[in-house]
Amino acid sequence: MKRTEMMTEVSPNWDQFYRQDINAKIPFFCREDRIYDCLFSQQFDRHLLDRLFGVADKMRRLAQTKAGADFLASLLSHKRAMLYFVQPSTRTFLSFQNACHILGFKTSEIRDTSISSEIKGETPEDSVRTFSSYVDLIIMRHPVPGFVEKTAWVMNRAKRPVPVINGGSGKDQHPTQALLDVYTLNSCLKGGVEGKTIVMVGDLKRGRTVRSLSYLMKNYKGVRLVFVSPPQLRMEKDILDFLSRHLIPYRETDDLGPVMREADAIYMTRIQDEHDTAGESKKVDYSRFCFRQKDLKAIKDTCIIMHPLPRRDEIELSVDEDDRAVYWRQERNGMWVRAALIAHIFSVEDQILKRS
Amino acid sequence: MKRTEMMTEVSPNWDQFYRQDINAKIPFFCREDRIYDCLFSQQFDRHLLDRLFGVADKMRRLAQTKAGADFLASLLSHKRAMLYFVQPSTRTFLSFQNACHILGFKTSEIRDTSISSEIKGETPEDSVRTFSSYVDLIIMRHPVPGFVEKTAWVMNRAKRPVPVINGGSGKDQHPTQALLDVYTLNSCLKGGVEGKTIVMVGDLKRGRTVRSLSYLMKNYKGVRLVFVSPPQLRMEKDILDFLSRHLIPYRETDDLGPVMREADAIYMTRIQDEHDTAGESKKVDYSRFCFRQKDLKAIKDTCIIMHPLPRRDEIELSVDEDDRAVYWRQERNGMWVRAALIAHIFSVEDQILKRS
Amino acid sequence: MKRTEMMTEVSPNWDQFYRQDINAKIPFFCREDRIYDCLFSQQFDRHLLDRLFGVADKMRRLAQTKAGADFLASLLSHKRAMLYFVQPSTRTFLSFQNACHILGFKTSEIRDTSISSEIKGETPEDSVRTFSSYVDLIIMRHPVPGFVEKTAWVMNRAKRPVPVINGGSGKDQHPTQALLDVYTLNSCLKGGVEGKTIVMVGDLKRGRTVRSLSYLMKNYKGVRLVFVSPPQLRMEKDILDFLSRHLIPYRETDDLGPVMREADAIYMTRIQDEHDTAGESKKVDYSRFCFRQKDLKAIKDTCIIMHPLPRRDEIELSVDEDDRAVYWRQERNGMWVRAALIAHIFSVEDQILKRS
Repeated sequence: MKRTEMMTEVSPNWDQFYRQDINAKIPFFCREDRIYDCLFSQQFDRHLLDRLFGVADKMRRLAQTKAGADFLASLLSHKRAMLYFVQPSTRTFLSFQNACHILGFKTSEIRDTSISSEIKGETPEDSVRTFSSYVDLIIMRHPVPGFVEKTAWVMNRAKRPVPVINGGSGKDQHPTQALLDVYTLNSCLKGGVEGKTIVMVGDLKRGRTVRSLSYLMKNYKGVRLVFVSPPQLRMEKDILDFLSRHLIPYRETDDLGPVMREADAIYMTRIQDEHDTAGESKKVDYSRFCFRQKDLKAIKDTCIIMHPLPRRDEIELSVDEDDRAVYWRQERNGMWVRAALIAHIFSVEDQILKRS
Repeated sequence: MKRTEMMTEVSPNWDQFYRQDINAKIPFFCREDRIYDCLFSQQFDRHLLDRLFGVADKMRRLAQTKAGADFLASLLSHKRAMLYFVQPSTRTFLSFQNACHILGFKTSEIRDTSISSEIKGETPEDSVRTFSSYVDLIIMRHPVPGFVEKTAWVMNRAKRPVPVINGGSGKDQHPTQALLDVYTLNSCLKGGVEGKTIVMVGDLKRGRTVRSLSYLMKNYKGVRLVFVSPPQLRMEKDILDFLSRHLIPYRETDDLGPVMREADAIYMTRIQDEHDTAGESKKVDYSRFCFRQKDLKAIKDTCIIMHPLPRRDEIELSVDEDDRAVYWRQERNGMWVRAALIAHIFSVEDQILKRS
Repeated sequence: MKRTEMMTEVSPNWDQFYRQDINAKIPFFCREDRIYDCLFSQQFDRHLLDRLFGVADKMRRLAQTKAGADFLASLLSHKRAMLYFVQPSTRTFLSFQNACHILGFKTSEIRDTSISSEIKGETPEDSVRTFSSYVDLIIMRHPVPGFVEKTAWVMNRAKRPVPVINGGSGKDQHPTQALLDVYTLNSCLKGGVEGKTIVMVGDLKRGRTVRSLSYLMKNYKGVRLVFVSPPQLRMEKDILDFLSRHLIPYRETDDLGPVMREADAIYMTRIQDEHDTAGESKKVDYSRFCFRQKDLKAIKDTCIIMHPLPRRDEIELSVDEDDRAVYWRQERNGMWVRAALIAHIFSVEDQILKRS
């Protein structure tokens, strides 16, 4: 069934569309076998992951010379992107903005909607559609769950469709964060992700990144997961069920010491106390879920230490100078893999891969 | 008389200059027979309108290919623009910013003056002059009537003059809005604007767009205007007098139903309740000045439906999908015609028109 | 001793490093005989000043043609800069941003840190390091003394170092302001700065610009300084001592009238009442430290009038039209000399100087 037919048949209205299972919705956000709107981690299969990582690697190499960087910036120099970030996020904002700049996009930005047409009684959908008039790509972060998806749905049905990338939508999805985590594992671990032991540490209950990352592990054979968390902050049942269903072995513990020795990657996270409802974080002894200078002696020579950042005290500052601490590289990887995703959406990744 | 002479003779000081009739002031804002500072709708005559629309059309066509878009972006790649928008207006801001990007300008922006030198006791004129030091074009929106004009006056007399474009100045002028409205009429109506019946609907008393649009109709032969509004919100006498003086036929009514049948264009507007002094808008039954899905059957096949946006309920959402609803295109037209205006100010429109 | 050795030996930790004398710290912020991080006025010696001014002059000339401007913008088109300005400063911000654009940099900006990761408990050092991941240059203004220097220190020791330019740090340093002042003196005074009489007027006690400017005068032979200020706001003893030590003759007075006749340059400044602790500025009769239209008759034909801006009433508006009033040019010079500094840091100044 062609996409256009599906549109009219399957999605007569937004509410009906939205209620569907994510996997049923994915085809609507694709065009010609490639991602058009990037909304869900579920849109990345192994084939696409490998392709995007290859593109990201190649872009990084090309960008090391002026000629290569100028080539990249020529690819989409005729395009304009809008960063619509109404939820504060300097980190993700800058990562996307610079990813756009790498490919030559001109960018404009909206970081506060209270200042304008919403005062005049315009619906958020009309606002976004207005702003989209001027650009070729929308990258959006929005606090309301489903809002980014709805924007993509609206824009996809418009006479002048514009692709939408989810830069973090409510608590539900932040697909490019998962992408950069897997990219970092894949590029920093010798031989890639397959067969590796990944230890995730901290507030696994409320951390969006560890949830998405666990999910994406279904794309890699032989991965073993170890979840290290305070008893109150264990990984949620839906993810554990998912892992069981996909036969991905996992273990749960609240003791980091013994498991760090076997880790190929340790993924540290901070406590997500902004989601507290009654100060429950204060009752947690988080000091047992921190990585210290002295722990560097305990881990494998090849083990990498990751963190989605921002950090508090989960990783001692002096750890930064160890070569196995890759969280700053991980941060930078975000920019590259986002650039690769945009290159994919705009069908220029072949040009990048062929460039010598 | 040459411009420079006029400057010294006619405008020894700002207050004297400002009090003059607009038509007397226009020559001061021109250089070598082209607009230098764009401040008033009155600066657009038929010849210039036709020229700008031709340039805008050509730019849109060129931008459809990468080669064409890169050509456009090469034209003014050596120029820098400053968007000085101290009155909230995301819509107009983005439209201008992207128009600049189309032509290759680098842009910088000021969106809040409270944060800087005004605290240090600088006059607004000095602030603007300072900021202008760095750029080749100023696009300005300012809540104080006359402020944009004064900036143009100051900068025009400076040793290093910089052109100024009015992006909306108090309640008085918003010339590029009128420009995009006429451009939309001209490009969406078969055979152009001449001889057409244009129905303007809503709060005609306080809507800046319908006032400017009516004014510009003097440039087109055989146009008939129909004003549909609540009795309290009728078009003001100064415009009606202007129309009579220029022999432009118009009619007033408060009943949209019968007149929509004869319309070539229906221009809907929202109620401007931000200008209420005592909640008078609440007494108006605005539901009679809305366009609904069912009305699509009543209007001509060739009739276009316009709206300056933002809208509230004046046009039902489902109308958007009809081909005659052109308000999203109208929004986008704003970017193109602003780009054409900038191309005109910087004398590159011939290069655009000649490009094959 | 090589820089890297020094790093490990001399600066084991920040506090030890920071407490050193500025001259001892300078080598740490250089690489291959050029400035890598620009933090202190003390980094500019006569040889470098001459070089930067030559580059700035050449850039201005090149920028007068489209071909020249496009050449400049091609030089660092593969680089990205971040403007991290958490202290309000539209003037310096725009000057740097446009300097970056002249050289082809793509820019991103942070103007408010309260909106993001600081809420999540990240240290400022981690925030800056995160943001630096995406770019090749950081230009920073920060209210906390030493913060810009610390950023440079951190980034200089990182695996992926990024140069840092000080755009104004607390009350201590604003090196590019001093640079533009000397550049203006040098380019507007026939025969350059040597042997000239420079009169500095106003709040000399608290004005950062007059302090730095006095300091840099050690690079020029035969300069005489005259300090004109209210008794309460005299130049501070550390600068006077510095001048004596370097045998630079100076005089102090509170009477502008007689000294303006002998001046080659008059550097006016506003009262810095934002540094008042108990409204002491209100007790000062500042009217005696203003330059008026009538004073134009008293000064030399070749005397230039400067002001770091913003001004209040220190210079009458009508003075602006006199050719000897160079403060607007001075403002613009800031952009050019900052562009020259960036060209130096990125080793492209030879390409600029060789361009015909």
